[in-house]
Amino acid sequence: MRASNERLHLGNYEGALRVWIELQDKYEMFCMVADWHSLTTLRAGQAFDVGRNSLEIAKDYVAAGLDPEKCAIFIQSHVPEHAELHLALSMVAGLGKLERVPTFKEKKDDLGAEQQVSYGLLGYPVLQAADILLYKPYGVPVGKDQAPHLEVSREIGRSFNSMFGVEVFPEFVNIIDQDELRSKLPGLDADENGVLRKMSKSYDNCIYLSETPDETAKKIKSAFTTPTKLKKTDPGIPEGCAVCQYLKVYSPDWQTAWDEDRAGIRGCMQSKTECIEVINEYLRPMRERRAALGDDEIREILRVGAEKARERAKMTMDEVRAAMKLA
Amino acid sequence: MRASNERLHLGNYEGALRVWIELQDKYEMFCMVADWHSLTTLRAGQAFDVGRNSLEIAKDYVAAGLDPEKCAIFIQSHVPEHAELHLALSMVAGLGKLERVPTFKEKKDDLGAEQQVSYGLLGYPVLQAADILLYKPYGVPVGKDQAPHLEVSREIGRSFNSMFGVEVFPEFVNIIDQDELRSKLPGLDADENGVLRKMSKSYDNCIYLSETPDETAKKIKSAFTTPTKLKKTDPGIPEGCAVCQYLKVYSPDWQTAWDEDRAGIRGCMQSKTECIEVINEYLRPMRERRAALGDDEIREILRVGAEKARERAKMTMDEVRAAMKLA
Repeated sequence: MRASNERLHLGNYEGALRVWIELQDKYEMFCMVADWHSLTTLRAGQAFDVGRNSLEIAKDYVAAGLDPEKCAIFIQSHVPEHAELHLALSMVAGLGKLERVPTFKEKKDDLGAEQQVSYGLLGYPVLQAADILLYKPYGVPVGKDQAPHLEVSREIGRSFNSMFGVEVFPEFVNIIDQDELRSKLPGLDADENGVLRKMSKSYDNCIYLSETPDETAKKIKSAFTTPTKLKKTDPGIPEGCAVCQYLKVYSPDWQTAWDEDRAGIRGCMQSKTECIEVINEYLRPMRERRAALGDDEIREILRVGAEKARERAKMTMDEVRAAMKLA
Repeated sequence: MRASNERLHLGNYEGALRVWIELQDKYEMFCMVADWHSLTTLRAGQAFDVGRNSLEIAKDYVAAGLDPEKCAIFIQSHVPEHAELHLALSMVAGLGKLERVPTFKEKKDDLGAEQQVSYGLLGYPVLQAADILLYKPYGVPVGKDQAPHLEVSREIGRSFNSMFGVEVFPEFVNIIDQDELRSKLPGLDADENGVLRKMSKSYDNCIYLSETPDETAKKIKSAFTTPTKLKKTDPGIPEGCAVCQYLKVYSPDWQTAWDEDRAGIRGCMQSKTECIEVINEYLRPMRERRAALGDDEIREILRVGAEKARERAKMTMDEVRAAMKLA
């Protein structure tokens, strides 16, 4: 998770953390806060506190249910082997390939003409490859739309193996989340065409794990619903209504709510009230865990996590050095 | 010194080591074998033993007169902070600037169309900036023609300072070697126009520090001299004769030799005999030191050197992390 967000939202939870939490009981797992990555799109005069953000995100990890006893939770820059493998892989990563990565072009455009595009932005997939390959994983959990990114990491691993004639990096599999709605949870608003869009910090349409129940209630009260449903008796279109989408995810009675919404025998306010209740209940244990989690405690968790990660990372780097015949 | 050469030649000595050896008595100095750099132009199927090369180059350093008691002699990849600072600087190094570095274009052309250009080749100047800035040096010894490279490092340092609003990297000066002939010592041959060119491994025109006196003698015997001087009485042009150039550098009596060469009262063979004598005498103490230097001894020197370098490198990385606000 990039540390340019200062905290995680429900979309981050459903799109990633939820799956990680399931996986932690089945696999040895390494969960990283990607602080280096968040620095690839620095803008002059817009410094942010990446260290503070990293701590807050790590708190969200633990609050959400990642268990530091079961998996390694750590900050990328605390494990220097990420930087070392990044440098090693930069010798086998093809420049042309990186220039053609679609997200590079998008982020370049986002930065705008007056902002410098950094060498590191072009190398984002190289760093990502290092993050993955350093742990020689069986698999990487990933949303369907993220699969192309993993393909670049896979190719860089193959290039390394082939350049040095040693199978240092075995192929890893994509562990794909099949829950389309959760993995692309809509935000509280709609785009200019009245179509729901992904929950994203950049749209300012998020429910944050760390906000208060009142803040969540306030946001859901003004969330996007069927725009043509002005009074209770107007028919709703639950497929295009943020609140109905949330009910589908979080309420066992969602089918009834949808039917009533369509039939004009329930108003949006009732749906919102129910939605507030189920989401706040869903977030309650996370909020309780988060409130109990101090800076010292999370720092200690991250220290231990980095130690665990380094143990594995060092073993891989030893193999990398041997393959490259470094002294 | 890049570790793609398996050993150093007289041109490397005169162009760099000679100056370093002078400086080691006046300054605290960090002398690195750049093994990462030598991997930026990997060619598929042409692996080389970068570790062995690094040891041999380090032996050449010590044989040439670098004193491990006076300066830190180390291998780049043994100090992981080089990789870390490289990653940090990649966030502030402008992509456009790197694409315009003339040596990038040259090396890209050298690789040819069928070889992949790596991300690391484009980032060569970023790694070089890390190598320099990590030690926050007062100055960097450099040949006149290398000055533009240092300018890129300087710019990257400035970008970092300005992006994070902290003067982590003070400006460093170029310590320029004024001896034009020595800093661009000609090789044993001439180009297709009969003009002397720099001693360089790629031209196969080198006298190696570690070769035997007999090997040196044999090479000088067939070195390039004035092509129109077929017999002793033909006038020579010492400015265009490799052997006369060497005499100018290594013989106190060079002026007499040049006058006699020009006047046709000395043959090329006499110059070659004298040249062999002075160069072998010049190299004798280096060869003796090298012969006495075992693998274990150089490994220990490099271990201690890396420790010294890391002490300084860690201090700088602490400042870098604080400036970037990493956790």
